[in-house]
Amino acid sequence: MNQRLEKLQTWMKEQEIEVSFLTSSENVFYLTGYYTDPHERLLALAVFQEAEPFLVCPAMEVHDAKRSGWEQEIIGFSDIDHPWEMIHTAIGKRIHGVTKAAIEKEHMNVERYEQLLQLFPKAVFVSAEEKVRRLRMIKDAKELKAIQEACALADYAVEFGCSEIKEGKTELDVLNALEYALKQKGVSEMSFATMVLTGTNAASPHGNPGDTKIRKGDFVLFDLGVVVDRYCSDITRTVAYGDINDKQKEIYDTVLQAQLAAIEASKPGVTAAQVDLTARKIITDAGYGEYFPHRLGHGLGIGIHEYPSMTETNQLVIEEGMVYTIEPGIYVPNVAGVRIEDDVYITAEGAKVLTKFPKELQMIR
Amino acid sequence: MNQRLEKLQTWMKEQEIEVSFLTSSENVFYLTGYYTDPHERLLALAVFQEAEPFLVCPAMEVHDAKRSGWEQEIIGFSDIDHPWEMIHTAIGKRIHGVTKAAIEKEHMNVERYEQLLQLFPKAVFVSAEEKVRRLRMIKDAKELKAIQEACALADYAVEFGCSEIKEGKTELDVLNALEYALKQKGVSEMSFATMVLTGTNAASPHGNPGDTKIRKGDFVLFDLGVVVDRYCSDITRTVAYGDINDKQKEIYDTVLQAQLAAIEASKPGVTAAQVDLTARKIITDAGYGEYFPHRLGHGLGIGIHEYPSMTETNQLVIEEGMVYTIEPGIYVPNVAGVRIEDDVYITAEGAKVLTKFPKELQMIR
Repeated sequence: MNQRLEKLQTWMKEQEIEVSFLTSSENVFYLTGYYTDPHERLLALAVFQEAEPFLVCPAMEVHDAKRSGWEQEIIGFSDIDHPWEMIHTAIGKRIHGVTKAAIEKEHMNVERYEQLLQLFPKAVFVSAEEKVRRLRMIKDAKELKAIQEACALADYAVEFGCSEIKEGKTELDVLNALEYALKQKGVSEMSFATMVLTGTNAASPHGNPGDTKIRKGDFVLFDLGVVVDRYCSDITRTVAYGDINDKQKEIYDTVLQAQLAAIEASKPGVTAAQVDLTARKIITDAGYGEYFPHRLGHGLGIGIHEYPSMTETNQLVIEEGMVYTIEPGIYVPNVAGVRIEDDVYITAEGAKVLTKFPKELQMIR
Repeated sequence: MNQRLEKLQTWMKEQEIEVSFLTSSENVFYLTGYYTDPHERLLALAVFQEAEPFLVCPAMEVHDAKRSGWEQEIIGFSDIDHPWEMIHTAIGKRIHGVTKAAIEKEHMNVERYEQLLQLFPKAVFVSAEEKVRRLRMIKDAKELKAIQEACALADYAVEFGCSEIKEGKTELDVLNALEYALKQKGVSEMSFATMVLTGTNAASPHGNPGDTKIRKGDFVLFDLGVVVDRYCSDITRTVAYGDINDKQKEIYDTVLQAQLAAIEASKPGVTAAQVDLTARKIITDAGYGEYFPHRLGHGLGIGIHEYPSMTETNQLVIEEGMVYTIEPGIYVPNVAGVRIEDDVYITAEGAKVLTKFPKELQMIR
């Protein structure tokens, strides 16, 4: 049994939960090492306090699941099998009756929930999500390595993107070119839809890349991430094309100071709120508080938005092993939008920055 | 009120359903014309037998929802609002008590379902999905136009892909080049992960493109689709690189004859099973029955897999206005894999083929 499953079992004993029934691809991967996107078919991991866990997946995936290192029972079902009956039998072999079960309430749909209610009519169903989020929040060495590789590729993507900025090119031109360059390096998945934004588009925190041409005197904002071994990176850089004015420079400098201060403030023992407020105070003191409308950052790992959520109210205490983004931004409509984002890993000594592309203002000529 | 909503209301009256609460992006788009991916936030459309329907979406999306043409009420909620209370109030203004409600049981998660159970403790919840699938199955002129445009781009992609086949290139080389060419044409979304497969990879119905080099004497299989105005196309073509042997030619010809016969058999009044079996019989009679392990095809539209499901047992009757794929295949391990797929639109006279790339065996030199 792996340590992650053992930690889940410890929690189940504390909470008197007889079975946890995990169904999202991300959580099944985290707990078993096996990843699949089963589309509309069922994927599930059943975990017990003492008994052997079992995995449920489409029959044609059983071989892959074994090959990925899962050594416990696998129940493979074909399109003519009844997986819920098979699950009922497998649970019945391990425990006698279920009074309290944990499920992923944000992931499981009503159709499946009704199946479970029929199988275990006396059970109370509680949410497993908060616990698994807490487990996933602390990264181990293997996870860190994947994130570091993903960060290095994100750095490369920004560097390549900068080299593609030229008079007359559009946001989409630059975006397509950098994603093509990543594919040439073997990247098959981005963490989310890549953003290349310029001019007034960059001045909105939710702009979409389009046919806007890059013009001298504008910022170009890159926000992108790469997936390596199922782990995400997430970087934002804002660069200047041609000469920019003093107001733009002031905004850039303010964001950079806020970002550096939040990195400095990131260490075990402080709260997420303290880190957010460190950056927020600098931006507010510079007169741009109302133009920083989002949280400072978010944890990342298998998911692009994990714990810790770096908000000004989150009292969660920062710990060694966390990985999160630090991404303050200032968006002044019709003037400029600047965001600078790094991914950091928390060590006993403080934050180690995983994304390395330079942050002093890059002037593209 | 649009005709789609009116048809849903007619069904609700027949079934004595007081409120339908739709939550998937696809179904909300189908019924309102407004598309958004709200990620973890709530999106919902509440429909009543007589009263005005209302849309629920994040506050920052309200403007977009109006602009897309939705003229009825929109409830926008911020991150500090309580959307379920707002929904409860809005429903209470329209009807007195809920005894039967329709929801998307395959889409709605348990967390939201528990909110609804609290708001309407006396209600029975039934599934809305089957009804909306039946509505979506028959396409109107505007939908057909989008699918036709998506098909034309899919044709272009296959043509471009063929021009990229050269000694020493890998599956991924060709795949990346054709997707890049589509992006240059303004395509921002594929219907699903593009497949370019060759050699033994193509001989598996679930191969994944990789670093396999294309060699003379092999087939190259393209399976891809393009999204235009939210509607999907889906095409498969198998082409020969260099000279192929008689066995490969026999397999190709068998698939082509089966595919043409299924197109010919497609017309109003026959069943999906009859169309599948028309193709299946030709393949079985040629001795390849066991190597055609999947259904003949599937409906497509906003989703890549819609009704009708073209299986050998589906007694659903083909009607004017349906759009579906016809994609027989033969996969002989270590010998050859061939699949030929068109998208067809059903008219009173029979099937109109929307994908136009040639189907006589293309020999790439």
